[in-house]
Amino acid sequence: MSEPEDALVVFTPSGRRGRFPVGTPLLEAARSLGVDIDSVCGGRGLCGRCQVDLCEGSFAKHGLESAASHLSAKSDTEYAWEMRRGPLSSGRRLSCSTQLLGDAVIDVPPSSQVHRQVVRKRAEVVNIELDPIVRLYFVEVQQPDMHVPASDLRRLKDALNYQWHLPQLESDIRVVQQLQQALRQGQWQVTVAVYNDERIIAVWPGLHEKIYGMAVDVGSTTIAAHLCDLQSGEVVASAGRMNPQIRFGEDLMSRVSYIMMNPGGEVDMTLAVREALNQVTEELAKEAGIGLNAIIEATFVGNPIMHSLVFGINPVELGGAPFALATDEAVDGLWATEIDLRIHPNARVYGLPCIAGHVGADTAAVILSETPYLSEELMLLVDVGTNAEIVLGNRERLLAASSPTGPAFEGAQISCGQRAAPGAIERVRIDPQTLEPRFKVIGCDLWSNQAGFAEAIAGHGVTGVCGSGIIEVIAELFLAGIINHEGVVNGALAERCPRVVADGRTFAYVLHQDASRTLRITQNDVRAIQLAKAALYAGIKLLMEQFGTDRVERIRLAGAFGTHIDVKYAMILGLIPDCDLEHVTSAGNAAGTGARIALLSRKSRQEIEEVVRRVEKVETATEPRFQEHFIAAMAIPHKTDAFSRLRASVTLPAPSPSQNTLNRAAGRRQRPPRQPS
Amino acid sequence: MSEPEDALVVFTPSGRRGRFPVGTPLLEAARSLGVDIDSVCGGRGLCGRCQVDLCEGSFAKHGLESAASHLSAKSDTEYAWEMRRGPLSSGRRLSCSTQLLGDAVIDVPPSSQVHRQVVRKRAEVVNIELDPIVRLYFVEVQQPDMHVPASDLRRLKDALNYQWHLPQLESDIRVVQQLQQALRQGQWQVTVAVYNDERIIAVWPGLHEKIYGMAVDVGSTTIAAHLCDLQSGEVVASAGRMNPQIRFGEDLMSRVSYIMMNPGGEVDMTLAVREALNQVTEELAKEAGIGLNAIIEATFVGNPIMHSLVFGINPVELGGAPFALATDEAVDGLWATEIDLRIHPNARVYGLPCIAGHVGADTAAVILSETPYLSEELMLLVDVGTNAEIVLGNRERLLAASSPTGPAFEGAQISCGQRAAPGAIERVRIDPQTLEPRFKVIGCDLWSNQAGFAEAIAGHGVTGVCGSGIIEVIAELFLAGIINHEGVVNGALAERCPRVVADGRTFAYVLHQDASRTLRITQNDVRAIQLAKAALYAGIKLLMEQFGTDRVERIRLAGAFGTHIDVKYAMILGLIPDCDLEHVTSAGNAAGTGARIALLSRKSRQEIEEVVRRVEKVETATEPRFQEHFIAAMAIPHKTDAFSRLRASVTLPAPSPSQNTLNRAAGRRQRPPRQPS
Repeated sequence: MSEPEDALVVFTPSGRRGRFPVGTPLLEAARSLGVDIDSVCGGRGLCGRCQVDLCEGSFAKHGLESAASHLSAKSDTEYAWEMRRGPLSSGRRLSCSTQLLGDAVIDVPPSSQVHRQVVRKRAEVVNIELDPIVRLYFVEVQQPDMHVPASDLRRLKDALNYQWHLPQLESDIRVVQQLQQALRQGQWQVTVAVYNDERIIAVWPGLHEKIYGMAVDVGSTTIAAHLCDLQSGEVVASAGRMNPQIRFGEDLMSRVSYIMMNPGGEVDMTLAVREALNQVTEELAKEAGIGLNAIIEATFVGNPIMHSLVFGINPVELGGAPFALATDEAVDGLWATEIDLRIHPNARVYGLPCIAGHVGADTAAVILSETPYLSEELMLLVDVGTNAEIVLGNRERLLAASSPTGPAFEGAQISCGQRAAPGAIERVRIDPQTLEPRFKVIGCDLWSNQAGFAEAIAGHGVTGVCGSGIIEVIAELFLAGIINHEGVVNGALAERCPRVVADGRTFAYVLHQDASRTLRITQNDVRAIQLAKAALYAGIKLLMEQFGTDRVERIRLAGAFGTHIDVKYAMILGLIPDCDLEHVTSAGNAAGTGARIALLSRKSRQEIEEVVRRVEKVETATEPRFQEHFIAAMAIPHKTDAFSRLRASVTLPAPSPSQNTLNRAAGRRQRPPRQPS
Repeated sequence: MSEPEDALVVFTPSGRRGRFPVGTPLLEAARSLGVDIDSVCGGRGLCGRCQVDLCEGSFAKHGLESAASHLSAKSDTEYAWEMRRGPLSSGRRLSCSTQLLGDAVIDVPPSSQVHRQVVRKRAEVVNIELDPIVRLYFVEVQQPDMHVPASDLRRLKDALNYQWHLPQLESDIRVVQQLQQALRQGQWQVTVAVYNDERIIAVWPGLHEKIYGMAVDVGSTTIAAHLCDLQSGEVVASAGRMNPQIRFGEDLMSRVSYIMMNPGGEVDMTLAVREALNQVTEELAKEAGIGLNAIIEATFVGNPIMHSLVFGINPVELGGAPFALATDEAVDGLWATEIDLRIHPNARVYGLPCIAGHVGADTAAVILSETPYLSEELMLLVDVGTNAEIVLGNRERLLAASSPTGPAFEGAQISCGQRAAPGAIERVRIDPQTLEPRFKVIGCDLWSNQAGFAEAIAGHGVTGVCGSGIIEVIAELFLAGIINHEGVVNGALAERCPRVVADGRTFAYVLHQDASRTLRITQNDVRAIQLAKAALYAGIKLLMEQFGTDRVERIRLAGAFGTHIDVKYAMILGLIPDCDLEHVTSAGNAAGTGARIALLSRKSRQEIEEVVRRVEKVETATEPRFQEHFIAAMAIPHKTDAFSRLRASVTLPAPSPSQNTLNRAAGRRQRPPRQPS
């Protein structure tokens, strides 16, 4: 067999193929074919990011034989790399340091791809391609020459242009301040972090391979953050803590009131939230075992008020009509130092855009995560909190609103309500014959009627009912006929069921009683949930009406509430419109996921900025139809909507004759007070 | 006479003319003709910047009659403006509030032109058109509307686009933080400062008319700053102070040595210079009677080391070969807070580019001020300090170098040398017959041989000789034949002149003697000046050689030394090459002027950045020819150069026969040590 002058190489999984002269480095062949292989060091055998696997054997479909002898023997560069980093697994090579000697099939493992897919838990839509806005480039820089007195920065830029095809970069003054020392420490080899292919934002001596970013969801109650490796996209640490602003008021409205009563209070609140962010950041770095300086980017989402406070904007205008946002643009490319965030001093911060005075960057993040704007089906996204944020739409149109549900879903305003914590009832079943309940509490896997339950819960007892438990107990009360469509507790049952007890002029249902406490669901509790769910449903209906539809095809429930409630019970109560139950799912922490997507994909930032711009904002507060929808939605599940798809899987009680009584009662009630989201 | 439907208006001085419907406001007519009339308030009769003068009479050349009755009567808006600001002079109107009723000639006074000329003291080149990079715009912003929930920022931008044709502005987060309060305080009228037509950098409630900028020259010894009104271009205050870094070393090299000996010393030095900048800033603001927040921009020039320290760059690399600059780009659009400058917190800073390790932003500023790059004639610019910066060129080519003159020209290394201060001899004449001197000292207008001199100087006495005095005394010694072409003090004269005295193996000349001191010019003093002037001349010759010329057409001497020396004596000594004396002039504080031009004209920034990029840097230290030129330049005025144009106006002594002795002596001497500029 005569030695061929050219050799055929096929790269998998892309299937790209080409003939190259014998002796061509694999990385070079791959690049000329447009095969996606990573490299920080630019093919110098330093970073080890360009690893590939030789596939040995006879490949009929490619028409070639691939053998170990068709690649050059392991090079000194590879041995040196293995000395530093540990041995390469069998058949694995550094593509920059391996030459093609004959035909070969070369597999590029996902870990060597620049634009690898970030694993994500969502079924419907495209995965996010890893493409962080900050990237590392290793370069060798020419040493200064008195006869060609170009500055160190100019020679660095020339090197970046020549070696990485990055022309016309700008540079932070902070990089200029560090550049000369880095170049000399690194013996004229440095790694730079380049922001958006535009601007050098950091420099390290020699080869620097690890940079991280953090994605932060600043909620009213909790701050949750993920630390991601910007080269792999992996989450390497997660941390959360209570929002310290709780000391200025539990809900957002009371925090705005605090500012109104205490001019300058917004400064204290900004300091408090920024300090908490720094604490979370330290936790992340500690958990990941990295220095704070390794974090080079951060993305933020939050409701409009928290968003304002993080970025030092007084949120006071969000406390009253017309709820004007200071800005509905993304906060882009800000120095982290500008918000006192103690990560790399040249790090950048990105804040997703807020949508409207009540619809924040957290909702933008939910949209980015759930991508209704790519959906053929009509999607409804609901993020339930003190306000519910609602997004309805598909690839044609997107509408968003916030609805003032109040805190009932979180257990506030409920006589036995409490936060989700050990001891809280989270699941309830009521036997429709005996009207006896059984339940589960957080921290225990047993049902209350199972053996060993009492022992299992001895540590915390049964202390109250959390949000998901309240939804279930009221839905079960309805299914058991203890409350009717109007939400009225049927006092007549008191005769045959000791759990139904008089409570002033109304009746209550005793869910649990022990030596320390009695947990009752009162008529007022049912009313509070009815008001909250009617507000939510009315908001959804308003959007559906504006969209011109009477049914949605898919419902995603975001946030902690959405994760924990049983969607069937939510629909039985009429929190959400009728839909096939298998198309109603939890979106998990979609806001946090959206923040992470924005961290890992610069294209996603453009995407969400453009999408947010064309979201149609619907203001529920001033819409006359809202009140009408609200009243109709007080009934369980609804006064007029049929819920026929729900009825296909759940038997609902027949409507009671006295429906109108309730409607009049609801009509007399005040609307719940407006709560900023 | 029937009422015309249209009226003819002619604007002077532009001569633009057009017909407009009766009732057209003058400002509108002017704008549609492209006539340059200023307005901050956008034609609302608030700012009074659009004032024009009616020219009454019959204008044959324009073919019209212009009369007061051809303009609308003084409007309520104008009366209201006069109430606030004082009466308009006769015939003067606010063009926004005055309608055209008939034909008229309207003069736009310079004070109403946006792009008016800034008065400048230079003869050769175009004046600078006022076009600061920061401009004010007054806008009325739509109030927020719950039904159209655009943010306050978006509505502001819409207003700026609609009212001022400024599309796609970006905005500082710091503006967003202040925006909502400003809009509400100003009742939806605000003034914004827009940077480079790109970015909103400040906002004030209502109409805000005054913004200022400062131009700063950070020298090794002194910091000098001018405060300019950015709307008129006028200098409203000037201030200067000693550079506090003198405590780290008198000259730049000793400051770099300090850093080398004290790692971290650069931080102290940066703090010191920034603190001094803040003190100068406070002086400026106090002198002008404005608040620090009214200063919205600052431009900086300085030698490479001071430039580095101001911008927080460790200058240590500039202390030794290869003298690598960190950056040779302009520092552009930096927040002033980034260099701890306490002016408006959103203000911007611009640093002119450095050219090479020894040729700083101060030289770039001299180039910008003197514009050799526009000159048909071959220009030589010399800025004499511890190093001399030399620029040679014309519109075709520009060369720059720095030459290590050492501090002799500043009076250091001279036995009787001192800084320019009262008591220092600055002018000297020596009678070629009697060899008797007369002189003038700083602080006294009398010559030393005039009646009353002794009394006039009694306060300070005669304390030493400053830089310009040294040039003069040595040149006069040469003209009087006391020293020869080689710089040797002729000891034979001691016999007939008591002022020539033995001084070890050489001779000295006694310039002055009184009870407290004797001021002598020693052989070593002459040698020190010869070395310094030979270094300067050699640098110039090197540039001329590289340029391919043996004569220059115009010489401009920049800086304090250039301002004070008599150019004739400088040429007699051979500091500068032969040239018609009337073409050798002082450029004054050209570096400071350059900083001011950059402050007032954004086009000038592009201009100098482009020019600096194409300046050919000549490194004197490594150029073998430098040594040769240096030796030849030791003679007075020069060993071989004829200085024929100088001889046309000054009679120089004939060359002495023993020329070679000196050359050998000079050849044995070390070159002066390299001093960073």
